[in-house]
Formats: sequence, C-alpha cells, structure tokens
Amino acid sequence: MKSEIIAVGSEMLTPFRQDTNSLYLTEKLNEIGVTVAFKTIVGDRRKDLVGAIRNALIRVDILILMGGLGPTEDDLTREAVAEALSLTLRREAAQVAALHARAATWRMPMPENNLKQADVIEGATVLANPNGSAPGQWLETLHAGYRKLLILVPGPPNECKPLFDSECLPRLREVVPLRHIAKRTLKAAMIPESQADKLLAPIYNEYSDVETTILAHAGDIQLTLICSKASQEIAEQRVEELATRMEEALDDWLYSSEGESLEQIVLYYLGLRQATLAVAESCTGGMIAQRITSVPGSSRSFLGGAVVYSNELKTAFADVSPELLERYGAVSSEVASALAEGIRKRTGATLGLGITGIAGPAGATDTKPVGLVYIAVSDTQKTDSFERNFRGARDRVREWAAQQALDLIRRKLM
Amino acid sequence: MKSEIIAVGSEMLTPFRQDTNSLYLTEKLNEIGVTVAFKTIVGDRRKDLVGAIRNALIRVDILILMGGLGPTEDDLTREAVAEALSLTLRREAAQVAALHARAATWRMPMPENNLKQADVIEGATVLANPNGSAPGQWLETLHAGYRKLLILVPGPPNECKPLFDSECLPRLREVVPLRHIAKRTLKAAMIPESQADKLLAPIYNEYSDVETTILAHAGDIQLTLICSKASQEIAEQRVEELATRMEEALDDWLYSSEGESLEQIVLYYLGLRQATLAVAESCTGGMIAQRITSVPGSSRSFLGGAVVYSNELKTAFADVSPELLERYGAVSSEVASALAEGIRKRTGATLGLGITGIAGPAGATDTKPVGLVYIAVSDTQKTDSFERNFRGARDRVREWAAQQALDLIRRKLM
Repeated sequence: MKSEIIAVGSEMLTPFRQDTNSLYLTEKLNEIGVTVAFKTIVGDRRKDLVGAIRNALIRVDILILMGGLGPTEDDLTREAVAEALSLTLRREAAQVAALHARAATWRMPMPENNLKQADVIEGATVLANPNGSAPGQWLETLHAGYRKLLILVPGPPNECKPLFDSECLPRLREVVPLRHIAKRTLKAAMIPESQADKLLAPIYNEYSDVETTILAHAGDIQLTLICSKASQEIAEQRVEELATRMEEALDDWLYSSEGESLEQIVLYYLGLRQATLAVAESCTGGMIAQRITSVPGSSRSFLGGAVVYSNELKTAFADVSPELLERYGAVSSEVASALAEGIRKRTGATLGLGITGIAGPAGATDTKPVGLVYIAVSDTQKTDSFERNFRGARDRVREWAAQQALDLIRRKLM
Repeated sequence: MKSEIIAVGSEMLTPFRQDTNSLYLTEKLNEIGVTVAFKTIVGDRRKDLVGAIRNALIRVDILILMGGLGPTEDDLTREAVAEALSLTLRREAAQVAALHARAATWRMPMPENNLKQADVIEGATVLANPNGSAPGQWLETLHAGYRKLLILVPGPPNECKPLFDSECLPRLREVVPLRHIAKRTLKAAMIPESQADKLLAPIYNEYSDVETTILAHAGDIQLTLICSKASQEIAEQRVEELATRMEEALDDWLYSSEGESLEQIVLYYLGLRQATLAVAESCTGGMIAQRITSVPGSSRSFLGGAVVYSNELKTAFADVSPELLERYGAVSSEVASALAEGIRKRTGATLGLGITGIAGPAGATDTKPVGLVYIAVSDTQKTDSFERNFRGARDRVREWAAQQALDLIRRKLM
C-alpha cells in the first residue's frame, strides 16, 4: 500500500527547520509493508493545505498529516481535512471535558480558542495523546469511489512518535494486508564508498527481492537490507543469505552485523579483552572521547584522556619530550607515538591512542598539508603509527580522523 | 513570488536519508524575496514525478527540481518535465562533446547511457555544472496561460549548491521583482524557551512586517529577523529597531547579535582579555573541548584539557585528592571546584573549568539523580561552583551541561 506524509507548518519552509518525524514514521510504516511514496511540506495556509490533501488523495491509499492540530489560529489541519472531503466538524463534549481537566491539572487558564482542539471530523475516531492537549484522529472514508485512510497526528516529536506507536500502528496492522518483513543492518569502516559499491553491487543486484540501501558518512558505511515476503521464515532466509555474502565480501572492513555504532563495537571488544583505553587527542580536540563516552556504561572500559592542543600540554599530560616536539614537529609520526605511549603509561590503561594532525584551514606548511593526520596505538608490546591524508574542510578532516582512530583501535583488538 | 522545491530520489523516502539541500536553497531564495510555499519529495517513478510537476505548476510561479539528472535509468527528471509540459527533448551536440571530454580527463569509460545527460528540454538553457557530469537546466515557459519558471539542478550537495549560486541566483535576480531584504540573527543561552517567548512575543508581535523565527535547542535560542521592503534602508531600520528592543529584553541571556556560536563568543572574549582556558570534563566526556576546538584558530586561547572519566584520572590530571573524592563523591560541588582549580594550575591557563555529573541512564543514587551536574569556573582570585539539574536522556543531559558550562565561562569573561 502506498502512503503520503504531509508535514504541516510554515516553520518547516524556512531555512532553519526540517521535518524529521517523517523518518521515524517511514521506518515504522515500512516495517508493516507500507511504502512512503511522497512527502509534502506545506505551510499554515488553509487553501494550500486543502489543495495538498486533495492531491494526496488521488495518488495514495494512506495519508498521514503531521502537525497543525494545536489551539492557535495557524492550526488548520482539522478544518482543511474536513473541507477537502466535504465533511463537517463537530465539537465533542468528551474532548471538551478532557481539555478542561488537563488545564486544571496544570493550573493553566483555558482560553476559548483552546476548545477547537475538541473538534472532530465527521466519522473520525479520536486518538488519545497522553503528552499533549491535541488528540490525533483516524478517518476511514470513501473518496471518488476509493477507500482512503487519513491519519492526523500532532507535530511535536514527543507527542507524534508515542501516539503513532500506541494508537496508529495497531490499527494499521489491522487494515494493511499482512506482510512479513526481515531487516538487517551491516556497517563497515574506512572502505571507500566507490570500492564498497564495486564489491557489493554484483551481489545485491542478484537479490531483487531484498531492498538494499547504502548510506555513507565520513568513513562509515551503513547497509540496510529489507525483505518482505508471505512468510517470515522466507524473508529472513533471503536477508540472511544476502547479508552473509556481503559480510564475506566486506571482510575486515565490516565492523557490525547488527547495526551497532563503531564506538559501541570498540567498547564491546575492550570489555571482551578486559582491556582499558585512554586517548591523547590534538587535532580531534575531544571528539574521540566524546564519541566513546556517548555510550552508556563506557566508564567500565574508558578511563579518559587528554585534549593536548598546546605543546606544553602534550608534555604535561602525555610526557612527550620538548626535544621530540622540537625535532619532528607536533604533527609527526614520532609525536603521535609518544602521545599514545605517554597517555597509556600515565593512565595505566591497557591501550593508548595518540592523534595529531592539521585540521585546517590554517596551520599547513610546505611539507605538511591540511588533512595530514598521524594516529598511533600503543600497548605494552609495541606502538604502531599510521599516516593518513584526509581531504575537505576542518569538520570533515576531524570527523574522518576520529573515525579512523576508532577503527584502528578496533583492528588492534580484533 | 511563490516557489516549490521538488526533491527527486527514492532514497529520500527511506528512514535513512533526508533532503537537506532545500534548506540552503530556501535561504538563498528568501534573500531575494522568493517564498518557498511547498516542498515535495518524490521517488524515481516517472508517473509520480510527472504528477508532482503538474501539481506544482498549478500552485506556484517558480518550480525547482533537485536530483534525477544523472546517467542511470532511475534518473528521470528531464523526461518527466518534458512530459508534464508536452515538450520534446533534444540531444545537444555541445553537451555530448562536453561529456566525452570529461570522461577523457578522468580516464573513465563512456557508456552510451551517459549521453542522456546531454538531453535538453525544448526551450531550456543549459546551466554549467563544474563539479559533475549532469548540467542544470533553466526553462521559462507558459503553462495554462501563466508564466512559469522551472529550474533543474543536480542532487549531490557539492554540485547543487555551487550551481545554484553561480548559475541560478544571478538569473533569478533578473526575473524576480527587486525586493530589499534585511536580516539579523540573535542568540541567547540557557533562557527557558517559554520565558523567552513570554518576553519577546509582545515585542515582535508589534512588528508584523518583520518575520521572526525562534529556534530552540539544548539551552540555545536562535532568533532570526527578516524584513522585506521597497528600500534597503527602511528594511534595515525595521530589523534594527526590533533587534534592539529584543536585545534589551534578553539582557545578559543574549550572547550574540550577529549569529556567532557560543563557542565563537567564548573564544572572542578569551582573546579580548588575553586569557587562556583549560577544561577538565567528566560527564561531558570531551564535548566541551570538541565544541571549542571546532572553531578555526581556537588554539590561540584554548590550551586543552583532560577527560577525567575515572577517579584515578581526576587525581592524575587535575590533582583532585583521593580524600576529597572519597568524602564528597565524584559528583559533587567540591570535586567540580577541585577539577577547575587543578586543571587551571596544571596547565597554567588563566581560567579553568571543571564539570562532573550523572549523565545516565545508570549511576544515580538516592541523593544524586540522573541529570545532576556540577560546574565550576576558576581563576586566580576564586573558584565558583554551580549546581544544575537537567532532564532527559544521556545525550540531552550532556548537551545541556556542555552549553551551560560554555555560558558560565562567557559570563565569567563578560
């Protein structure tokens, strides 16, 4: 079945804000076999909204309207749907009572205007919204002889998502023909996108019944495989078969078979080896530590580290000798190694990571261009140092460098 | 003039990828007085695309199509526009030659299919694309008696944005009636969103000719004021007047009058005072250092710091005594102050920042809930410590804590 999501709100037609709810809704809809064929963003103008609803009713079976259900004059979704379908709005006593009760609980005044949130489209079912004052609505109707389903949900993400999960999905499962869907997410690090596609396209092209999506960002490649079949067993078998072949092709570029992040995998391996990690970051300025500590429970394996932007701190926190800094320069393989060793010894960690480079836009010399990064990993046996050249602006160089560093730790632990 | 942006590509109808180009295009269009009234996202299906184009031609004057200009079978934008307008496509010799020349430069093979990128819609002007093989197209036409402008631009951001700037904007300025637009961006930190709106709404509501947009994220509030007038002077005067009144109302919540980030402002004040900063981060795990070092040239005022996740590192890098940790616990006002003082003395910085808290989801005790954060700022005169309670999940607590810490440094330097 085909669906369209209409996001209502003039703020999403500015340069500053984007509809993001629809990504969540799309994932949930796909999981029960509903395709999203169109997304439309329309402002708070009634005529525009009525037109967009009529267009959608011609081209899809299921229409989801997000936003425009609040109490203000700009909130026009209920009115527009009623107009587009030539239906009436009735003010429902139970909803009026619920609004009064809510205002009383929060000790808030209850302006007359608020009551428009109690208006229900003729034939629609009210969908309870525990996190806000505007309920959703569910309307099955006939339009030009075809059965159409319209779902109205509130715009704020903390209202939209729970209401969609609890009120819409169970109802959708009853009206959408049953499909069995299997899904897997694989992830690989630092493989060039073109090389990944060259390796994988001949494989996934053989599986026209499995939808493969490739997403690439700063040294990270995510592959999502989705298959929909009459039986769950067959769907999972197809996804499993394709995933296994792709995993083999990706070899040790692959770091996750179940969608975990690279920092989660690094922490998993650290736990498995009963090892601990400390980092000394120059060019990434805390980005690696920040990624690792974003994972709950990371304190079990991550001791911490130092952000050693100045030469003095490289000496103070990681015991890099001033002579070494003088001789090779702060951005050098030797200093990266000294940082990794120094931070390991100073913290008592099993593994030490050192990273130094030129993130740009300034700081380049004749022999050391913007994007040059040295990364070293140290344990009690040895310290290995790696040279990399990343292209692009400051942010991009830092993101690639952090990703590469995490991947080198993963490879060390594998 | 009203415009619609149609983003073409099935990948933007998955849960994984979003159209982001349109935010950039919207900003540029608004600056010359063109409103974006609709955004539509449509997949690589010719019938869907033709329908979307026809809908758009009814409701707007300017239609921008992004994507679907490449060499593959899925790239159908040229064909769909021609079909929607009943125009022909002609293969242009000059474009064919350009494609061959490009393939030769890159030493790439030139499959027959690639040549479809040389197809030009009847009456259209070719827009050069220096960063890719598919050129854009510019088409002024009559549709149902109305003048319509269609612009086709490539989808990849690194092709779309420069092509739009160099080829489309100058042409748009010639066809769009001249409007003078003034714009200002104000930013405030740590003021509750509801309080900001209560303060500001009575003011900006008096200026119905200035469009005010409020964006809030993790303790950061951004206000954008845009005014379009017959003369530049009047537009700027109106924006200036409103901005001044809002600045006064925001008082010292305001940190930027020209759109700078909080980390830029902190670095600006550090430079002004010839001061340096070092940080000792526990719960934020490097996030503060990472934000500061994202600014080019930050090394002039930011020395670095320590990510002191374990108690041992709090002692090793910031000289927090084990007795203090034992007596008050790692998450305490006393330890935050010791971190700030310790890191300042150890690094020789003018200012030291210490932060410790419970980011969650685990780690809470009866007396110390998730979201409890202590932040201390230290200089040679004194050390001040602040207690905060942030609500929400781990990421949210960390983001609020980092924002609060940066704002406390700003206030210290003001």
